[in-house]
Amino acid sequence: MLFERIALIGFGLIGSSLARVVRRDGLARHIAVCARTRQTLDTAVKLGLADSVSLDCLDAVEGADLVMLCTPLSAYGEIAAAMAPRLKKGCIVSDVGSVKQVVLSDVGEHLPDGVHLVPGHPVAGTEHSGPEAGFAELFEGRWCILTPAADADQGAVDRVAELWRRAGMMIEVMDAPHHDQVLAITSHLPHLIAYTIVGTATDLEEDLQKEVVKFAAGGFRDFTRIAASDPVMWRDICLTNQDAVLEMLGRFSEDLTALRRAVRRGDGGTLEDWFARTRAIRRGVIDAKQA
Amino acid sequence: MLFERIALIGFGLIGSSLARVVRRDGLARHIAVCARTRQTLDTAVKLGLADSVSLDCLDAVEGADLVMLCTPLSAYGEIAAAMAPRLKKGCIVSDVGSVKQVVLSDVGEHLPDGVHLVPGHPVAGTEHSGPEAGFAELFEGRWCILTPAADADQGAVDRVAELWRRAGMMIEVMDAPHHDQVLAITSHLPHLIAYTIVGTATDLEEDLQKEVVKFAAGGFRDFTRIAASDPVMWRDICLTNQDAVLEMLGRFSEDLTALRRAVRRGDGGTLEDWFARTRAIRRGVIDAKQA
Repeated sequence: MLFERIALIGFGLIGSSLARVVRRDGLARHIAVCARTRQTLDTAVKLGLADSVSLDCLDAVEGADLVMLCTPLSAYGEIAAAMAPRLKKGCIVSDVGSVKQVVLSDVGEHLPDGVHLVPGHPVAGTEHSGPEAGFAELFEGRWCILTPAADADQGAVDRVAELWRRAGMMIEVMDAPHHDQVLAITSHLPHLIAYTIVGTATDLEEDLQKEVVKFAAGGFRDFTRIAASDPVMWRDICLTNQDAVLEMLGRFSEDLTALRRAVRRGDGGTLEDWFARTRAIRRGVIDAKQA
Repeated sequence: MLFERIALIGFGLIGSSLARVVRRDGLARHIAVCARTRQTLDTAVKLGLADSVSLDCLDAVEGADLVMLCTPLSAYGEIAAAMAPRLKKGCIVSDVGSVKQVVLSDVGEHLPDGVHLVPGHPVAGTEHSGPEAGFAELFEGRWCILTPAADADQGAVDRVAELWRRAGMMIEVMDAPHHDQVLAITSHLPHLIAYTIVGTATDLEEDLQKEVVKFAAGGFRDFTRIAASDPVMWRDICLTNQDAVLEMLGRFSEDLTALRRAVRRGDGGTLEDWFARTRAIRRGVIDAKQA
């Protein structure tokens, strides 16, 4: 038992997967679930993953020693402001969002003294959304990045780290700006590119579009999978990690221009060199067991 | 038994996978394998997939009723010119290349009367290369596109179609320019984009690059897989399908510019709309059983 009462604010893919881990391993005495719709709360109850449910986060955080924000990033500020008065002393507030600087500002500014903020990002996911898409094994073998402020309470950081370790994750601690830069290239840029290319295909003449679906096995299908991720979540990531995303989009565009030029010039040497050197990174990913 | 003697010119992922199918189902009395290196030929023998092997395609095509080109596209012209005098009357020449207009020109111009050209493209593959990466199930449930000229021999087309059907493929016949346009968006553009983004990551500062590998699970890993495909094969695709690839790269670049602008302006409405509409294509791919 790691916590007395965990309040999960938001109950989609990540929140419900974490609830499954907590249930499976008995990591909390009580799981309080807060969501925006009655339907999600009913699902949480039906799945046996909630000891109490509420549409109001004030009820959920009452008496909690861990509050985990699992909503889209754009909801954080309002939730933090609303729940702050009800947080008990010593409570840990954490989250699972894909951008981390914004948590220190949007959430941090509202929290009273004696409440510990430990922003976190379990780097795991699928293209499926919602509470029924969750599963306990989602986190296994993946990294969880924690980005506590320099003066954060070490005991609180350790407890959040232990929760994710029990979920099967490896823990890395770094500062929030660095996290946002790394994830801009490993996650945010790939998603934006996938959304773009699938969008390009969506704009094709109708007969061509049908064939795009039919012959998707040539590479396109992987992009459609990535581009099926939750739209609101990805909108919020773009808005809250704007600078790093634009920086990486800029670098990518430069490289794309160079590649286009090589194709236009029929410069086979440049193309072959380019296509060969990217294999090294693939080997790295496989060796790191992140393939 | 569909053929007396099949000559496989080139013995990588696709050629060796086809050999496995032919062997498994007894579709030919004799499999003649031609490859550029002794090592590949030794592997073909070791795997029990060759009845005869040769470094010279003239030996392989001698007496063959089907010659299947499974080399990179840039080798086609030279091979066709070399083997033409030795092809027997009634022989079918086919291929597995990812671009099809170039086959009609590079191969077609060399073939003597009485030899039937049936260009084909089994739309299947993995990021692995070489004869040991092949497996008989590679083609199952996927599409094979045949692009015979308007005046092609129908009996020859039917026999090639039957071969791929036995491998588990569905057959589509279309003209070569249309094939090259469809594949530019479903396969060539996705690969180029994946190569570009992995290249962008390769150019990052060294410490950042290590972290890119570590946290690849956020989306990047799928791109590294695609960008691990055979460099020579992809160089040749770019060079031989230049016009359609440039056209699709142009459309993609326009869309990317629009998306960048939306990120820069913090235009959440545009981003969310964009990210939501791409889900429909994913559903189409799943419904078409090509996911």
